[in-house]
Amino acid sequence: MSRFLKPRKKRKGLPPGSLVYLGESKNVPVEMTLISYSPDSVDERRLVDLHEAAKLATNPKNVSWLNITGSVEKSIMVDVGERFGIHSLWLEDVLNTDHRPKVEELDNLIFVIVKLPKLEDKDSGKVSFEQISIFLGEGFVISFQEHPADTFSSIKERIQKGLGNVRSAQADYLFYALIDRVIDDYYDAVENLGARVEKLDAQLREEMDDFDSHKIIELRNEFLFLRKSAVPIRDSLKSILSSKKDEIQQSTKRYFRDAYDHSIHIVETIDGYRELLKGQVDAYQNMLNQRMNEVIKVLTVFATIFTPLTFIAGVYGMNFRYMPELTWQGGYFFSLGLMLVVALALLYYFKRKRWL
Amino acid sequence: MSRFLKPRKKRKGLPPGSLVYLGESKNVPVEMTLISYSPDSVDERRLVDLHEAAKLATNPKNVSWLNITGSVEKSIMVDVGERFGIHSLWLEDVLNTDHRPKVEELDNLIFVIVKLPKLEDKDSGKVSFEQISIFLGEGFVISFQEHPADTFSSIKERIQKGLGNVRSAQADYLFYALIDRVIDDYYDAVENLGARVEKLDAQLREEMDDFDSHKIIELRNEFLFLRKSAVPIRDSLKSILSSKKDEIQQSTKRYFRDAYDHSIHIVETIDGYRELLKGQVDAYQNMLNQRMNEVIKVLTVFATIFTPLTFIAGVYGMNFRYMPELTWQGGYFFSLGLMLVVALALLYYFKRKRWL
Amino acid sequence: MSRFLKPRKKRKGLPPGSLVYLGESKNVPVEMTLISYSPDSVDERRLVDLHEAAKLATNPKNVSWLNITGSVEKSIMVDVGERFGIHSLWLEDVLNTDHRPKVEELDNLIFVIVKLPKLEDKDSGKVSFEQISIFLGEGFVISFQEHPADTFSSIKERIQKGLGNVRSAQADYLFYALIDRVIDDYYDAVENLGARVEKLDAQLREEMDDFDSHKIIELRNEFLFLRKSAVPIRDSLKSILSSKKDEIQQSTKRYFRDAYDHSIHIVETIDGYRELLKGQVDAYQNMLNQRMNEVIKVLTVFATIFTPLTFIAGVYGMNFRYMPELTWQGGYFFSLGLMLVVALALLYYFKRKRWL
Amino acid sequence: MSRFLKPRKKRKGLPPGSLVYLGESKNVPVEMTLISYSPDSVDERRLVDLHEAAKLATNPKNVSWLNITGSVEKSIMVDVGERFGIHSLWLEDVLNTDHRPKVEELDNLIFVIVKLPKLEDKDSGKVSFEQISIFLGEGFVISFQEHPADTFSSIKERIQKGLGNVRSAQADYLFYALIDRVIDDYYDAVENLGARVEKLDAQLREEMDDFDSHKIIELRNEFLFLRKSAVPIRDSLKSILSSKKDEIQQSTKRYFRDAYDHSIHIVETIDGYRELLKGQVDAYQNMLNQRMNEVIKVLTVFATIFTPLTFIAGVYGMNFRYMPELTWQGGYFFSLGLMLVVALALLYYFKRKRWL
Amino acid sequence: MSRFLKPRKKRKGLPPGSLVYLGESKNVPVEMTLISYSPDSVDERRLVDLHEAAKLATNPKNVSWLNITGSVEKSIMVDVGERFGIHSLWLEDVLNTDHRPKVEELDNLIFVIVKLPKLEDKDSGKVSFEQISIFLGEGFVISFQEHPADTFSSIKERIQKGLGNVRSAQADYLFYALIDRVIDDYYDAVENLGARVEKLDAQLREEMDDFDSHKIIELRNEFLFLRKSAVPIRDSLKSILSSKKDEIQQSTKRYFRDAYDHSIHIVETIDGYRELLKGQVDAYQNMLNQRMNEVIKVLTVFATIFTPLTFIAGVYGMNFRYMPELTWQGGYFFSLGLMLVVALALLYYFKRKRWL
Repeated sequence: MSRFLKPRKKRKGLPPGSLVYLGESKNVPVEMTLISYSPDSVDERRLVDLHEAAKLATNPKNVSWLNITGSVEKSIMVDVGERFGIHSLWLEDVLNTDHRPKVEELDNLIFVIVKLPKLEDKDSGKVSFEQISIFLGEGFVISFQEHPADTFSSIKERIQKGLGNVRSAQADYLFYALIDRVIDDYYDAVENLGARVEKLDAQLREEMDDFDSHKIIELRNEFLFLRKSAVPIRDSLKSILSSKKDEIQQSTKRYFRDAYDHSIHIVETIDGYRELLKGQVDAYQNMLNQRMNEVIKVLTVFATIFTPLTFIAGVYGMNFRYMPELTWQGGYFFSLGLMLVVALALLYYFKRKRWL
Repeated sequence: MSRFLKPRKKRKGLPPGSLVYLGESKNVPVEMTLISYSPDSVDERRLVDLHEAAKLATNPKNVSWLNITGSVEKSIMVDVGERFGIHSLWLEDVLNTDHRPKVEELDNLIFVIVKLPKLEDKDSGKVSFEQISIFLGEGFVISFQEHPADTFSSIKERIQKGLGNVRSAQADYLFYALIDRVIDDYYDAVENLGARVEKLDAQLREEMDDFDSHKIIELRNEFLFLRKSAVPIRDSLKSILSSKKDEIQQSTKRYFRDAYDHSIHIVETIDGYRELLKGQVDAYQNMLNQRMNEVIKVLTVFATIFTPLTFIAGVYGMNFRYMPELTWQGGYFFSLGLMLVVALALLYYFKRKRWL
Repeated sequence: MSRFLKPRKKRKGLPPGSLVYLGESKNVPVEMTLISYSPDSVDERRLVDLHEAAKLATNPKNVSWLNITGSVEKSIMVDVGERFGIHSLWLEDVLNTDHRPKVEELDNLIFVIVKLPKLEDKDSGKVSFEQISIFLGEGFVISFQEHPADTFSSIKERIQKGLGNVRSAQADYLFYALIDRVIDDYYDAVENLGARVEKLDAQLREEMDDFDSHKIIELRNEFLFLRKSAVPIRDSLKSILSSKKDEIQQSTKRYFRDAYDHSIHIVETIDGYRELLKGQVDAYQNMLNQRMNEVIKVLTVFATIFTPLTFIAGVYGMNFRYMPELTWQGGYFFSLGLMLVVALALLYYFKRKRWL
Repeated sequence: MSRFLKPRKKRKGLPPGSLVYLGESKNVPVEMTLISYSPDSVDERRLVDLHEAAKLATNPKNVSWLNITGSVEKSIMVDVGERFGIHSLWLEDVLNTDHRPKVEELDNLIFVIVKLPKLEDKDSGKVSFEQISIFLGEGFVISFQEHPADTFSSIKERIQKGLGNVRSAQADYLFYALIDRVIDDYYDAVENLGARVEKLDAQLREEMDDFDSHKIIELRNEFLFLRKSAVPIRDSLKSILSSKKDEIQQSTKRYFRDAYDHSIHIVETIDGYRELLKGQVDAYQNMLNQRMNEVIKVLTVFATIFTPLTFIAGVYGMNFRYMPELTWQGGYFFSLGLMLVVALALLYYFKRKRWL
Repeated sequence: MSRFLKPRKKRKGLPPGSLVYLGESKNVPVEMTLISYSPDSVDERRLVDLHEAAKLATNPKNVSWLNITGSVEKSIMVDVGERFGIHSLWLEDVLNTDHRPKVEELDNLIFVIVKLPKLEDKDSGKVSFEQISIFLGEGFVISFQEHPADTFSSIKERIQKGLGNVRSAQADYLFYALIDRVIDDYYDAVENLGARVEKLDAQLREEMDDFDSHKIIELRNEFLFLRKSAVPIRDSLKSILSSKKDEIQQSTKRYFRDAYDHSIHIVETIDGYRELLKGQVDAYQNMLNQRMNEVIKVLTVFATIFTPLTFIAGVYGMNFRYMPELTWQGGYFFSLGLMLVVALALLYYFKRKRWL
């Protein structure tokens, strides 16, 4: 739940643009990788500081991709800001790992913040989010990740091996490829949660006793979290598509249009599952009510049949001195017969009421 | 449920535009049919490969309709792409049989993806969807179906026999006719599911005991699936209607307007049924609660009447040596009378409370 | 429920624009009435075929109103189409009595489809709908009704007697008057259903036992049907008001604006009643729950008080040879006293719990 | 409930523009007051007929305010219509006291219909509405009220005593002042109903037994009615603000902007209370369920403990000739001990289940 | 609840623009502070009356910030209005501490009303709101607070110490900084209430008995209040961003854009928590129902097993003279055996029904 909002105490009262890292684990070591490529050459290396980057990314025709992972310190951000002309408010957004996903275009830069969904562990089905910030400038892309995971390794491989269009295209295509990669992980997350919904559905249908109704609510919440970070991605892609600026070429927009389609698909699928879960809550309530009905019917039938019988037995168990029936020869069998008649009459009554 | 999303593992990590078939059954044999017609001639034949198509569709005044069914291999798609100038991202969308319905206009082509609803089997009332992709270019229409069903046979017949306007019209009219055909199947699906809703309603009114409340939820879900694929068709038709491009002639737009009306009708009808089902959930809950009330009333009346009677019988069944009543001549009848009075008083009480 | 969708089997597979009558009762005889009027003359006569119409409606300054009722055959429609220049798709819409209400402007014609609500019978409160199609052209109005009811008799009378503005106005005013007449029937339907809501409300307040909760759901559904056909009328009127074409004069628009106000009023009132019915569902659930609570309290109090008393009686009904109390002189009265103390203690307990 | 719609039988079938009074009480005597003022003079008098008005309102620099209350007859409306150039459709709207609130600008006139909320009586909390129609023309304002209440007396006083800006301003300011006065009464109504919501909330928190759940639903309905007439006022003010016509001066628009703010505030507050009431329905349901749980627990604990004890007593109350325990010296105490053990075991069981 | 609307009796009937203080505590002493600064100088002092302000704020290049706290009297407002050219309607809005948050641009001034959320006390989780009104004019900012809290102390400190950009920027940046400060307090409030939601969630999961379901509803209401004042802030910032006027420079808009992002984030987070709370209501209902089911099952099993046993005991406790079984040697053990068989059969039955 605290996933909604990270504590902001560190920042409170500071002037806007102050560079304070808000991530949870401040100790993730920083790694910087620079990949510089053109249609016919690739160069990838780890950087120790950003001065190297300056030396390496000299060829104006190359596309340079600077990928920074870990809990970045203020000094690095200041360097990045100066070298690439990024405003301090944007640098602050990168460090504020609780920032809302968004896209902004200013100063010939496009700045995108997206959330990468990850299944925390396979059993609980909890989804956590990593903030990924990407800048697109002329000839370069800078991406920030909270964790040094190999999220973008497939793209690195495509660059290295020259698969697909990435090598022959400009920086805007790389920018697209990174966002597309993030969207792929939404498909994974939705698929995984969706399988859980399906499993719950099967359990509901079998009317299992150990059905855990909490799981419906929990899944609903997970889809809520997923939706909350997927919708701004969809909106960001829409705003990129309708942008008049020329940081992104017309030919690349076709790819963004494709990514936009996927983002709509994801949001619609999430909404669909949320509807299904709503139906499950209803189905579960119905199941509970039906069972309660059944239990109470059994109770009623049993209690209602035996109550008058026990009463008759009680009457003939009274110790009055003068009770004519007691002395009858067939009194006992008469009483048993009476009980039988009463029982049968009640059974017939319940049969007609369709309780049996 | 997995109907929401097909597993994407095959595609994961591949660059966009990779041609991988995502359909479930890869083994449906591919069939290609080319129909070439003008107001006064028709020619229909099965193709083995696309090179034939080139030879046949030579008359520029003819309309050529290439219909491809089955699980298409990559090579065919590459051929289609080259011959008709279709971008690889669109080819990829054709193979991705899980794609969201949409319309796109680019490069003098209109590309439409729609979902054809089919009742899986008559009893379960489950609706499955087949993806149909249609390209409209200058003088040609290309359609892709997952299964070699005779979905479009009525249109083929109209072309063969020259019924309606199709022969005298251009390719855009054929394009419309295919989409209109798909919309017809939505009417069928809605009609079929609607009949089930009606049946449930009648059962609810008769307050049948074996009423299966799961069916309400299941129907709700089926309508949800239907809506999810019908809404984008409506939106696609709207966007075609408001398009300024001239792939579709003004005279044909009148027909698209008609199809658009139908698509609105379908979505509104689906929404109407969803509202009705919502009402049924409420009605069912009320029915369950009313019954529970009734059962519990019976239990209460019986238990409450016999409990004091049995108690009285219990008192006079005690074995105290000195119990004056026991020795009374009419003690027994006195006790029976007492019981009667208590029972009548309670019956009067319940009568006044209107529980009887 | 089948009111949502009429079976379309007759049309299936036919090319668009095929003229097939979809109404339920094909046997309603067709009646054609032509009223031709100017500020100072009126002429009304029944037609046998449309050739007469040509002869009669010769004065270009006159307004001609052709009213056709019953299950129209194809041949008449073809005649109408040719004589007045109406496209076959529109003719098809007239015959498709299940068509969604709409307005379309094309070829100097305005075409409107509306649904006339009728209370099927006074008791059930079911609303059925008759499709009314109206064409407005230069100097003429053509209206189609499914049934030969006297829906428009008041307008005929106003024309005959020269009441109001209709005689001195153009065809567009007549067009308005017909639509306004239909809207009046919505007021009737809403008023009638609204009275039922009110009656239910009173019954709920009196907490009657024979309250039929199905009626709430049924009324909700009727309002749903009503809304479904009233909303497109509102939207049609809005689109007529904002139309730039000059089929409808500025002075007549004032009247359309008035009709538009009424259509908004109707939709808002329907929505209001739907909200009230939502509240009734809640109120009914609360009533049921409160009653169940009360019943169970009675059961609990009775059962809980007598259970220990019966137990005490049972104990002293045991047949052990050595039970000291049994031989006490006042054993019996001691046991009765004990029971009294237990009963009073329990009564006090329930009093404090406020169950009594 | 009939508050939603007044019966329209009187009007049915009449041509539009027919002047028929639809108010409930036709017998409210008509009163006409004319106030004519300029920055330095005021003249107020009751009129017997409208001819006087003509004589009095001669100075073109004066602002004339004609206030007409009561159930106006047709003849007066016709006079008003002729003298001030008001279209008969608008006159009809004034008489139709069930008209939807609206604003219209035409023929250099602004016509506004608003509903004045009144608490019918303090106890029931029912809100009734009086229709107020106001016309703004060049130099004059005409207002119609259903009842001769002193709704506008404070404004009259401000005119008489020259308080505020009203005397020095034009007719448009008076027009604003009247609307603003109506809005003030919405604040009163919302405040009063809001106090009831608060009281219900306190009662719910104390879990009172005589809590009347009907009141929640009734209050919800009252807010529904209030909203239904407040929203069109908000929308009317918005449309006045964005109007390009110059009936209302720029300097007066600032006041309308203020009134618009208030109308938004009222609608938002109503929506807020409706949300609170929704929460109360949930809270009430929870309360009922919790209590039911508690009652049933008591029943279960009692019944479950005494049932086996009574059974044991029953066993030793059997009359078999050969029952060893009966002849034991300590048989009685053994049986009592057995009962104690069983009772304690059950108590422990319920304790562990936390039912005690 | 009365937090929705403060009583307006004081104002009723007064002409608009009347300056009447509506705050609750009229006795908060007024404090006026003037801070005048330029990039290289700061001057802060308490004012006794506004004439001093005139003397002090002479340098046209300086930014002057006049901060007024407490329950301001009419005379001060009149002075402020005259000195800074503020319309009396705006002055009235400042005093009406119940005003809806808004932004208005007129006469080269921007006027903003926002609500500062405060946790009333830590335990109850109730949020109260203080109204803050801010004017931005050329070279000056005037802010009004209801309470003399040190809300803006951090900004004062930044001005004094020259931290961040505030000293080097214009008045519009100060205007931004004040609004940003208010937004920070929304984060605090949301964080605090969110922690409560989380705590409730944990309690629900542990299915605690003393779970107070009222708290869910109360928290929902608090979020409702919070949303009601956060949404207009978001909308105000959006309107400032899209304003074409030049009171706010382009470079400062970047900061407003940042604040706008935060306001969206806050509203989205509030909506997220409201969804979570909706899930909790469902979860709680499920929990109650499950428990009820369990309790009733225990009751049913116990009652149903012992009822027939007690009945058998009752039969053999009857006092008929001729009851063959009573005289059997093993009659007693036969009856016990019979009971055992019945009990086992019922246990088996319940086992199969999975009630045990």
